[in-house]
Amino acid sequence: MADWQQIAGGITAPRGFQAAGIAAGLKPSGDPDLALILSDTNAVAGGVFTTSQIKAACVTFDQHQLAQNPDSIRAIVVNAGQANACTGSQGEANNTALAQAVATAVHVQLSQVLTASTGVIGKQLDMAKLEAGLPTVAAQLSANGGDAAARAILTTDLVKKSIALEAEIQGHPVRIGGIAKGSGMIHPNLATMLGFITCDATISAQLWQTMIHRAADVSFNQITVDGDTSTNDLLIGLANGQSQAPPIQPDTPEALILEDMLHDACIYLAKAIARDGEGANKLIEIRVNGTARDEDARKMARIIASSPLVKSAAFGCDPNWGRVAAAAGRADIPFDQTALDITLGEFQLMQGGMPLAFDRQAASEYLKGDPIVFTVDLHQGFGEGKAWGCDLSYDYVRINAEYTT
Amino acid sequence: MADWQQIAGGITAPRGFQAAGIAAGLKPSGDPDLALILSDTNAVAGGVFTTSQIKAACVTFDQHQLAQNPDSIRAIVVNAGQANACTGSQGEANNTALAQAVATAVHVQLSQVLTASTGVIGKQLDMAKLEAGLPTVAAQLSANGGDAAARAILTTDLVKKSIALEAEIQGHPVRIGGIAKGSGMIHPNLATMLGFITCDATISAQLWQTMIHRAADVSFNQITVDGDTSTNDLLIGLANGQSQAPPIQPDTPEALILEDMLHDACIYLAKAIARDGEGANKLIEIRVNGTARDEDARKMARIIASSPLVKSAAFGCDPNWGRVAAAAGRADIPFDQTALDITLGEFQLMQGGMPLAFDRQAASEYLKGDPIVFTVDLHQGFGEGKAWGCDLSYDYVRINAEYTT
Repeated sequence: MADWQQIAGGITAPRGFQAAGIAAGLKPSGDPDLALILSDTNAVAGGVFTTSQIKAACVTFDQHQLAQNPDSIRAIVVNAGQANACTGSQGEANNTALAQAVATAVHVQLSQVLTASTGVIGKQLDMAKLEAGLPTVAAQLSANGGDAAARAILTTDLVKKSIALEAEIQGHPVRIGGIAKGSGMIHPNLATMLGFITCDATISAQLWQTMIHRAADVSFNQITVDGDTSTNDLLIGLANGQSQAPPIQPDTPEALILEDMLHDACIYLAKAIARDGEGANKLIEIRVNGTARDEDARKMARIIASSPLVKSAAFGCDPNWGRVAAAAGRADIPFDQTALDITLGEFQLMQGGMPLAFDRQAASEYLKGDPIVFTVDLHQGFGEGKAWGCDLSYDYVRINAEYTT
Repeated sequence: MADWQQIAGGITAPRGFQAAGIAAGLKPSGDPDLALILSDTNAVAGGVFTTSQIKAACVTFDQHQLAQNPDSIRAIVVNAGQANACTGSQGEANNTALAQAVATAVHVQLSQVLTASTGVIGKQLDMAKLEAGLPTVAAQLSANGGDAAARAILTTDLVKKSIALEAEIQGHPVRIGGIAKGSGMIHPNLATMLGFITCDATISAQLWQTMIHRAADVSFNQITVDGDTSTNDLLIGLANGQSQAPPIQPDTPEALILEDMLHDACIYLAKAIARDGEGANKLIEIRVNGTARDEDARKMARIIASSPLVKSAAFGCDPNWGRVAAAAGRADIPFDQTALDITLGEFQLMQGGMPLAFDRQAASEYLKGDPIVFTVDLHQGFGEGKAWGCDLSYDYVRINAEYTT
């Protein structure tokens, strides 16, 4: 049993956080496109950033900020209009000017501001609209603003993605909130994944950063819509200590509770992103058990979840053990093929490396549901991992082919 | 200028090779499904095999044969009915029995026979039909049988893939022939790629094997339809010395000519496979230049050619530099993003990491052609590489989703 419960409020559920989201005119649609997150007090900050060689200006800026000043971050500004990637030195200058404008608007230092962008790549930030919108979004900051912020960071997402969890730690309620955006595979948005976590625990920057990295490894790094990695992907977590619970020490039961709760929040958001992939009809969960190491299992699960053959079989409701086995086989994880078991929901499709007879019609019916779960067991260790994806539909091709830059 | 020319005859163009292909009843369609290739004399043999952890019985058998007896291979039997993968020890016994039946039919030793299979996985070989068909196919062996063999190894391929080239080496015509099958992404066929090369040069097994491996690296290993690797993929090359040209010595101009000709033959076949991908309308060629090493360029090219976003943009005729840049960025090849150039045909889309203005309508027109070429230049070395893929169409989804195992 988990030691925590879901609560309302998203990123403003933890104490001492405010947020807001407005339409600043960055999106032609007129939808909300500018979000601001503020911690009332200094927060420790951790981040995980795109591994792409092509990084947006916000990514290199935030990496520098977190390296210099991980203990006293106050604000994050997010724009969902221009990604500010492939924009050269002008893009860097604009990003810094944006961060400075935020610092001025909420009365903090430039060193306390982080930025995140998503949207069209190769276009400069619309500084006039951003600078005009900042006072407005700053004026709307509130402890009930989590929902508005969750909405304003979206691009082509169909639904907003928000979560808040609360645990009791040494008699104090400690809360984690999170929002995310995904989808938007349509260039020029390029599949940007943004995630923001707030927390009111008291914790060192070092331990918090470790937790944020490990949480990303089991959640956002385990989802795939089409295997692409954006120039702008980032996950940022802030923890401001406003719960008044005693500081979280490493390797204690309290640290374990906090980290497990963080994993659950991130996995919730990651699954919501996968489920909202372009043209997706269902969430596919791949569980891999029995590898030597957890990271091997996670890698294999990711490769299976990414396979276009597996994804199109899920769309077509075909209980296709062969495609799952083939994807497992090419994951560069050595295993004994005669030990391979594959299960779909309750249907065992393969045992000891050979196919079994199963109720094909019932299995196909199961595939019409959502989510669908494939489990692969290699029986050579205690490693385990999960990954999530979505089916590959006609709509995926339509959305991505008919779009014109 | 290449020092060779294309000639007729496929795998039976080189001297001393015979081939045949018949319908043995393995395919429900009644199409040809059993091929035999025979060298009249002992041939040196080299092979490249699937890297999947799940290997069909023919793969492990051939690897053993080549390790034991690389200097005197005589025959290759290919069935396009059952892949004989995921079939356990019975599958292994059947494969050996098939090889023995071939040895008997063409009067060679078991140690001189190689096998290759493609088709349904998880099903045992139909030994009765194979053993009934072998005398027939052996009786039809002829020096004009290359075409029949090329046809009998296909599964869901739309066209047969065959090539023959001839060079003059020290006054003697030396020939290379090749056939291949690809496509067949439809489980249970699982995208098996088979390639067979014949050559009448005189060459050591060691040098020939090196050449076959390097040829696979620039050809069959550089094509992608949907990123999957089959349980049965293999490339086998035989060289029997029947050209009567002097032996090819390493690091000589003659070795260079032979190897270049081998590359051209393999690239021709590989491109034919990519062009014939399921639902494909056009061949996409990705050229990467300016990496530190050739293998870096090949890896990046492969990742770009595999990107569903790039593939669907090609289908939709969208000159989408952003998707190409994003795929380049996630290839794990470090580069300076401010040096990145991207060209589509004659249209330069990106220079120094930033987008250029270009004639969008003309570029979109270019994308309606076949093949289409994207060139990525990183300007940090002399490494170069190419990869080939096809567009991602509605038909790909239809073929792979509507198929039911």
